[in-house]
This record gives sequence, C-alpha cells and structure tokens, in this order.
Amino acid sequence: MTIYSTIIKPTLLLDENKAKDNLDFVLKKIKRQNITFRPHFKTHQSAVIGEWFRYRGINQITVSSIEMAEYFSNSGWNDILIAFPINLREINAIVKLAHAITLSVLIESLEVVAQLDSLIDTKVGVWIKVDVGAGRTGIVWSDLDKLESIASSVKFSRNLKLQGLLTHSGHTYRASGQSEIQKIYYESLDRLQIVKRHLETKDLGPIKISVGDTPSTIAVTEYGDIDEIRPGNFIFYDVQQSIAGVCGIENIAIAVACPVVSTHPERLEATIYGGAIHFSKDFFHYQGSTMAYGYVVAVTKNGWDDQKVIGYVKSLSQEHGILRIYETEMENVKPGEIICVLPAHSCLTVQVMRNYLNLDGEIIRTINSNH
Amino acid sequence: MTIYSTIIKPTLLLDENKAKDNLDFVLKKIKRQNITFRPHFKTHQSAVIGEWFRYRGINQITVSSIEMAEYFSNSGWNDILIAFPINLREINAIVKLAHAITLSVLIESLEVVAQLDSLIDTKVGVWIKVDVGAGRTGIVWSDLDKLESIASSVKFSRNLKLQGLLTHSGHTYRASGQSEIQKIYYESLDRLQIVKRHLETKDLGPIKISVGDTPSTIAVTEYGDIDEIRPGNFIFYDVQQSIAGVCGIENIAIAVACPVVSTHPERLEATIYGGAIHFSKDFFHYQGSTMAYGYVVAVTKNGWDDQKVIGYVKSLSQEHGILRIYETEMENVKPGEIICVLPAHSCLTVQVMRNYLNLDGEIIRTINSNH
Repeated sequence: MTIYSTIIKPTLLLDENKAKDNLDFVLKKIKRQNITFRPHFKTHQSAVIGEWFRYRGINQITVSSIEMAEYFSNSGWNDILIAFPINLREINAIVKLAHAITLSVLIESLEVVAQLDSLIDTKVGVWIKVDVGAGRTGIVWSDLDKLESIASSVKFSRNLKLQGLLTHSGHTYRASGQSEIQKIYYESLDRLQIVKRHLETKDLGPIKISVGDTPSTIAVTEYGDIDEIRPGNFIFYDVQQSIAGVCGIENIAIAVACPVVSTHPERLEATIYGGAIHFSKDFFHYQGSTMAYGYVVAVTKNGWDDQKVIGYVKSLSQEHGILRIYETEMENVKPGEIICVLPAHSCLTVQVMRNYLNLDGEIIRTINSNH
Repeated sequence: MTIYSTIIKPTLLLDENKAKDNLDFVLKKIKRQNITFRPHFKTHQSAVIGEWFRYRGINQITVSSIEMAEYFSNSGWNDILIAFPINLREINAIVKLAHAITLSVLIESLEVVAQLDSLIDTKVGVWIKVDVGAGRTGIVWSDLDKLESIASSVKFSRNLKLQGLLTHSGHTYRASGQSEIQKIYYESLDRLQIVKRHLETKDLGPIKISVGDTPSTIAVTEYGDIDEIRPGNFIFYDVQQSIAGVCGIENIAIAVACPVVSTHPERLEATIYGGAIHFSKDFFHYQGSTMAYGYVVAVTKNGWDDQKVIGYVKSLSQEHGILRIYETEMENVKPGEIICVLPAHSCLTVQVMRNYLNLDGEIIRTINSNH
C-alpha cells in the first residue's frame, strides 16, 4: 500500500524531509551571522509546521494578516510581526493582539501613525516600510524628508515603539540568476543604510534593519549590516524559485497529486483533475517563453521522482489542468493514474489547497482547513 | 449606516438585483427556443443562489465536481450533470450519487467506458465529450471512427445510457466581440451535427446535443438544432466577459470590497488589502496590452458605482493589490477607506472568497464556506 492508493482527487503532498532540510540549511546560514531569523509563516500557514521552527529555537515570526497573527498566537507564538501595511479597519483585533503578545506592525504614512497612536492603548512595535526599488508599497528610500517625519512622529508618539526600517525586495523574484539577486540585495542594503544613517544623525535611532525574501536569503553569502531577516518561501520553494536559480527541483518540498482523466497522445497532452482552484493561477515562463503553471513529475512509491520532469502544465481552467507531456513519456501517462505537479508558486497553492498530506499519509492542517 | 461600516477586510459583495436580472435575461432567451436550460452552478457554488433558479422552474443543473454534485444533491437537486471527464478514482461517490439522483457524466475514452460500466451497478447517463476546436479536452469532432466506437460501446453497455454529444466551446472566451463568438458557435454546431448524423446513421441514436458557454449564450440569437444549453458565468459576469463584449460593466453582479492601506499619488497608485488569495490570479489585458486583474470602482452608499471605473488592478501578490488610479480620481482614494474591485474572472474569485455579503448586509454561504 502506498499513499496513492487512498488519493482520489487533487491532494497537496508534503515531503517533510525536504522541507526540514530546507529549513536547516537556511537556519544554519543565518545563525552564522548573528542576525534575528524571523521566518515568514504565510507560506506554510500551519501550526504543525510552525512547531518545526520552534523546536529549532525560533521564537519570532512574521505573518501577513491579522487572522494569521491570531492563529499563530493561539498556537503559542508571542512575538509576531504583521508584515503588511496596517489596515486601521482591523484596529480592534490589533489592540487585542497587542495586549496578548509582542506585536509589531508596518506603517508608511504620517496620517496612519497619528490614527494608530490615538486608537491603541498599549505598546506596539512599528517598522517603517521602505521601498528600495520593488515599487510595490512603502516609502521610496530616497524620500528622506518623509522618512524622517514619519520616524519622528513614531518616536515621539504615546504607544508606538520605533523599531526601524523594513523592506521586501520583491524585485528579486523577477531576477534571473544568483548574481542579479546579489546585486539587488546589496543595492537595497546600501539604500537602507543611507536612510538609517540619516535618521540616526537626526537622533531618531537606534534604527534596526529588517529584510526578507527567499531569493536574497539563499543567493547572498554575507548579509552585511542588518538586524533581521524574514524569508518564507524557502521552506517549500517552487518552480518559480528553481527557474530563478534559487533552488534545485530536488529541493521543492510540495507537489499536487492529480488524477489523470484523459490523454491525447496525438498532441502529447493529458488532462488532469487539478485546475486553478487547486494551484491558484500563478505562472512561470517555460524555457523562457510559454506561460506554464507547474512541472509534471512521475510518482514513486510514496512520493515523486524529482530527478525526472516529464512535462509541464500548459493551461489551467477551474478544475481542468492540461499537461504537455514529453514524447518519450507519453505512453507512461494513463487515465485513472496519478501524476504529481510541482507548483509554479507554493504559497498560493498551499492557500487554496488548505491541507497537506505528508508522505506517511497523515493530514497536516493549515489556518484555512475546514474545521 | 451602510454595509461598508461593518467591512474590515476583503469582502465579496453580491448585488442580487443585478444577478437576478442576468438570470431572467438568459432564462427568457432560452425559454423562447424550447431548449433545456441546465445552468452551470460552478460559478456561484451556493445552495441559496440555487434557489433563485429553482423558483424560476429550473430543475436540471450542471456542476464540475463530485463534491459539488453531492452538495447540490443535499439541497434537493435531483438531476445533475457532472461536466468534467469522469475520474474513476471517485467511483464510490459516483455510484452512491447515481443511486440517489438522476446523474449524468462525461466520457471521452473507450477504456473508461468499459471500466465505468463494470464498476457501476445502477443506471447513469453518459455524454460523450467532443472537442469542436477549443483543444482543451474531448474527442476531436472529426475523429468519427473513435466517436462511433465509444457511442457504440456506451449504447450496448449494461448500465450506461447514451445521452449524446456535449461540448464546451471554451475558445469563445478568447474571442473578441460578438460576431467572432457567433462564428465560433455556428462552426461548433456544424461540427456537432456532422457527428450526430454519423452516429444516427449507424443506428446509435437518438443523439442529443448539449452546448454551453456564456459568450455564445449571450451573443447568439438563434441557437439552432441543440437540445440543451449550460452557461454558468452569466449569473455574475466579470471584466473578462465585458472586454469580450458579452456584457456591460453595469451587468457585473459581484465586486470585492477592499480596504485601501496606502496611497502613492506621485505614481498614481494605491495599495489595497486584497491580493491573489482574494481574487485568484486570472487576468485580462487592459486596453489590449497591460496584464490587469480587475477594474476599480468607487463605492456608493450600499454598493458600487458601475458608471465610473476609476482605475485597474495592476498587480496582485499574496495579500497586496496594487491599483493604478486615474489621475483625476487619485485625490478620492484614501487609506482606511474602501474601494470595490470588479474581478477579472468571477468563478475563481467566488471560489477563493467562499462567502458573499449581499447589499443588505446578509452573508450568503457557498460549498466552500467554513462550517
């Protein structure tokens, strides 16, 4: 009997050994450099997987929503950073959390600082979100006047404790190869140091620096003068990361097991039960051009064969996935059998799948599991 | 007090009046032509919304998974077509359903016919899935030998009742404008008629024809010689449909209400709490080029202003959405307030959001609601 004998529909498989190896690799690297490791839990979203981190001595975490902070707080985590620009409409939940645990939030506007300080009645840590070039959100690093006025406003507030500068160099996800990622990292760091020096010169220090993205965490050897690092995706990786040169295919720790429902050998295609509702719909460029949603790998007795990609996911509709299969492998793909798909973007796949099945056949729940 | 006073995080709004108007429009059109209307419930996935259909005399429905069939069967629907190539791994649930209700399934391979017939112990309706050009799944319409051997195999099986030919002209979703959609529809119909005549000549009839996609349902005036039509998206529509010329923006019946968390007037952008986990990640091409994930509209007292698009969603990460706002509207977008986003693809947005809030502030649950 293998785990596949019980799988009847799309199922998110988790290879715990790979995931723990990924964790140990990053943990060892960060420990060497005397930096706070505050992993982002939005990738796995699971209290059970959180315990793997706690067991390794980690007690500070990052999340991306209030609900996720509440969920992990209920699992005993008591130092949580919500790395998302604060949404004042959720102030009641924020206040409640701030009373229960050591909570930090992100701000990026003067008016929000004032409102937050007037609404909260206990101490909360505040990081200023800085845009070092990703262009997603945050205050542009070169706007020193604005950064200074916000830092000053936090510093002299009633309840807000200025922590420092936080960035997410999201543009590393669009980089190709480790040297481009390193270049972005050091450029980002230079920019943060300029801001830090400016604020400390104005007596607004001490200013800590928090960075965090998986590509930099892996590609950069020496992190330099930072205080905290917050990668998340590294626990599982995915095809996007492998294409960016951040991991090997053999490091990807999750796969979606999908039943094949039809084959079309004449056009080297197969249809799986497994669509946008199982993968979300993030993509990568297969061989630099075609949009694709995952790599197809064959199953082994209780896992998948990471040494042999046999095709890719060419399109996804709501429940259907269309696979393009390599010619030499087509005869091995049969209706009724299972193939595994390594997802384009693991965070979004975990979000929609809601539960994992580990390779021992045990279900591992997430914040999104049905209760 | 408006519904917005209670909204603190991304919330899927449903304008029931618009949705019921959309339903009545399609229902009236189909009724005129003496065709079975078997709406696809994968778009709304809600027993409550299903009742709007039942109230209007509809008693045959389409779904896209066994779970959805079970869910609607539990809500009293007893004639259900699962419009997805049958997944034999779920045979136990299929048998159970086939005992409880009038169930139809899709097949597209000879070996699956044989296996299904040997595994099932009660009558089940079988439609042969035909590919009329979409290239997603099904037997290519011109492969008359294969179609004949499958039809024959079903006809002379023990428990399978041959219904006819079923297609989903999914390529209409990529068409631009009503005349291109009409052209695809009539070409598809011609192809199905060729197959139907062939099978009936071989004494395998009567062969019914079932078609179904929202673009054709709207764009085509006379459906011609078909027996059944199965659109689903029309109940809500979305930006993809409006861009294809299938509906107006004013017909879109759902929107995601999202808190603005920061603004960047210097680059005409705003950040919302609302990301890939709230919209999934389907897109359209804004003004024919830029990838975009939704239109931004301002809120009204208890809804949204469908007469004025004020921008579009430029990018989505896990929880963040980045809006591009038109210059004249930038000053009206403020942190802490709510904007509404009309989604690129309503089916996937409903799937990830799991619940609706109607404009009276009532929650409407779906199959995916947490219980």
